[in-house]
Amino acid sequence: MAPAPVVTLVTDFGLRDEFAGVVEGVIVRTAPRVRVVHVTHGINPTDVLGGMLALASAVPYLPDGVHLAVVDPGVGSERRALVVATGREALLVGPDNGLLLPAADALGGATRAWTIDNADLYLQPVAPTFHGRDVFAPVAARLADGLAPEEVGPPVDLADLVRVEVPPIVVRDRVLQARVLLVDRFGNMGLNARPGDLDDVGIAVGTDVEVTAGEGRFLARRARTFTDVRYGDMVVYDDASGWVGIAVNGSSAAAATGVATGDAIEIESR
Amino acid sequence: MAPAPVVTLVTDFGLRDEFAGVVEGVIVRTAPRVRVVHVTHGINPTDVLGGMLALASAVPYLPDGVHLAVVDPGVGSERRALVVATGREALLVGPDNGLLLPAADALGGATRAWTIDNADLYLQPVAPTFHGRDVFAPVAARLADGLAPEEVGPPVDLADLVRVEVPPIVVRDRVLQARVLLVDRFGNMGLNARPGDLDDVGIAVGTDVEVTAGEGRFLARRARTFTDVRYGDMVVYDDASGWVGIAVNGSSAAAATGVATGDAIEIESR
Amino acid sequence: MAPAPVVTLVTDFGLRDEFAGVVEGVIVRTAPRVRVVHVTHGINPTDVLGGMLALASAVPYLPDGVHLAVVDPGVGSERRALVVATGREALLVGPDNGLLLPAADALGGATRAWTIDNADLYLQPVAPTFHGRDVFAPVAARLADGLAPEEVGPPVDLADLVRVEVPPIVVRDRVLQARVLLVDRFGNMGLNARPGDLDDVGIAVGTDVEVTAGEGRFLARRARTFTDVRYGDMVVYDDASGWVGIAVNGSSAAAATGVATGDAIEIESR
Repeated sequence: MAPAPVVTLVTDFGLRDEFAGVVEGVIVRTAPRVRVVHVTHGINPTDVLGGMLALASAVPYLPDGVHLAVVDPGVGSERRALVVATGREALLVGPDNGLLLPAADALGGATRAWTIDNADLYLQPVAPTFHGRDVFAPVAARLADGLAPEEVGPPVDLADLVRVEVPPIVVRDRVLQARVLLVDRFGNMGLNARPGDLDDVGIAVGTDVEVTAGEGRFLARRARTFTDVRYGDMVVYDDASGWVGIAVNGSSAAAATGVATGDAIEIESR
Repeated sequence: MAPAPVVTLVTDFGLRDEFAGVVEGVIVRTAPRVRVVHVTHGINPTDVLGGMLALASAVPYLPDGVHLAVVDPGVGSERRALVVATGREALLVGPDNGLLLPAADALGGATRAWTIDNADLYLQPVAPTFHGRDVFAPVAARLADGLAPEEVGPPVDLADLVRVEVPPIVVRDRVLQARVLLVDRFGNMGLNARPGDLDDVGIAVGTDVEVTAGEGRFLARRARTFTDVRYGDMVVYDDASGWVGIAVNGSSAAAATGVATGDAIEIESR
Repeated sequence: MAPAPVVTLVTDFGLRDEFAGVVEGVIVRTAPRVRVVHVTHGINPTDVLGGMLALASAVPYLPDGVHLAVVDPGVGSERRALVVATGREALLVGPDNGLLLPAADALGGATRAWTIDNADLYLQPVAPTFHGRDVFAPVAARLADGLAPEEVGPPVDLADLVRVEVPPIVVRDRVLQARVLLVDRFGNMGLNARPGDLDDVGIAVGTDVEVTAGEGRFLARRARTFTDVRYGDMVVYDDASGWVGIAVNGSSAAAATGVATGDAIEIESR
């Protein structure tokens, strides 16, 4: 028996309200054989960058299928809704606000895209504030169930899609100046730097470093994992999504430093 | 192949503890072919009104099957446990405290009801504080798997069921006096008013209004969606569940006004 | 048709990030016919004792299959990863830090164990900080799909496994001195005492007691369920997991007493 088609979900809907469950409900009503994987609904409200990063980190590990992402501060406005085809047997569905494209890159690159505008596919009436339920869920379900993406609406030029860039790092005097892209559940911080950026400023694995974060300066070491430093010490490491991470073994680096998403961090050898 | 039978879940169990997962576990052990849809476990603890509203908003979008709802401050007491049949191919299961009836209305109306008292269906011993696990989960699973509702216990007169009423609005001098029924994850507020109530006081879509909330007065406009007002401005809109909503474009109306569930709100033209 | 094989999950990953969804994704990619039951991802970060208690409370109610638990402060270090066979048709998978053994006891006792070290089963490269994704998820999926546990690595002596003990109660002058093992979503407190311990100090169901917690002393009664005492009163009861619980009817015992996990509690007759 062929595996069930899959729709995966990344949203900022949270789990306090019924929104995420309703989206699954619509998918199951529309296409009962579809399997739904809730990747996360914990993106901060309207945080497109955060949703973009989580989606791009997740998709290489998800089954092929339809990856629906909804972080959509422009819901109900003229912003486009998209289906994006990729190099893998996967489609990305969501608003045209930058959310989808790094995930497409992680899946071999966007190959084609379409604007969703076929109202025959929607639940009617469409609530202007809940396209997740009335537009995206039925479209994603139909696509997972075999609908050709051409059926959702006209093609759109890949070059026209909205793209959100991760801010670049700055290197000055062999100091890596970075920003906190995300703080995870454990208080570990993900930076906008890649492990190779550390190598480039002479900070190899095993190097003792000083981290400037908020008003504080912290002694740390670049290492492989949390327990490579003593309990309570700070570690700079290659995180599981391919970014540079900063953690404190046994507790929260975000709490220890007082920094939050978007804040500046400096790392230098000592 | 026929689609799998479905049990959907709305509870106040939260997701921090193992309670929601244990309920799914009991359902799957009892009836392995049943599909479980977690609609939400985020109802505030013992908030029957909140659970009632979430369930009624969700059920029109859920697949037919058994909708189990557990917000049950009277667990283990003499309060009745119910199965309610509806006009659609759906059964509602939960405590007799008002939680189920608006959902039944949203599914075409309650047609029959039974009191659950067939202990042969329960897990034994029944924990007096966790009927979700020991009574409701196995009963819901058996019903989804084809058990006739007559088997759970004797019929009960629909007129005898406990009903919780949404408090009514008040209109005075063309001012709509309402209450906050719920605050969602985004800080959007749902009121106890229907869009038609705004029409009735002369506030059509496009009308500029003044909203009195807490100690503050806020300029707003009745519009279709968040982005119909400027970033940071307040919007009064028809929410996706059929109530009047109040939001702030790009942030939280609850935070902006300081009001919480149950608080009074006034809306008038300006 | 045989029921789908099952992998259940207990972790401290939370639901804010994509971690839990990625683990499900890897399981589904590895073994598409496996059903995933998310028991909870709400264990406090690195709280092995809390994860151990939740897992042991849950497993008797879960379908047979593979129970994967990841609360793993030593991830990437030399700590062992385990597969533990039990008296029931269930395998436990997780780090060798004590997390798994009470669950094995609840499933009829551990019968055999193996150290996971067959790198052919892992996703490559293995991130040193996310074995949940790269080691545990594919191994659990393969085991659920029929892989013999002998294939994961060499057997390990059950006597060598790390065990975490629940701290013992103390009885002095017919006063039960206990500790708070956990505080649940409702603010109900689970103690390290068994109902029989109350019987042993002469506190039968129906006995009026005094509870000393934090700086306060509270009148309470041992009863069956919350509503056996008046609204706002404290009740001592046999909780649904087999421990002694303390609750306040209609609100939070943790908030009322100000105590947290690990704090001391005394219960005596009055």
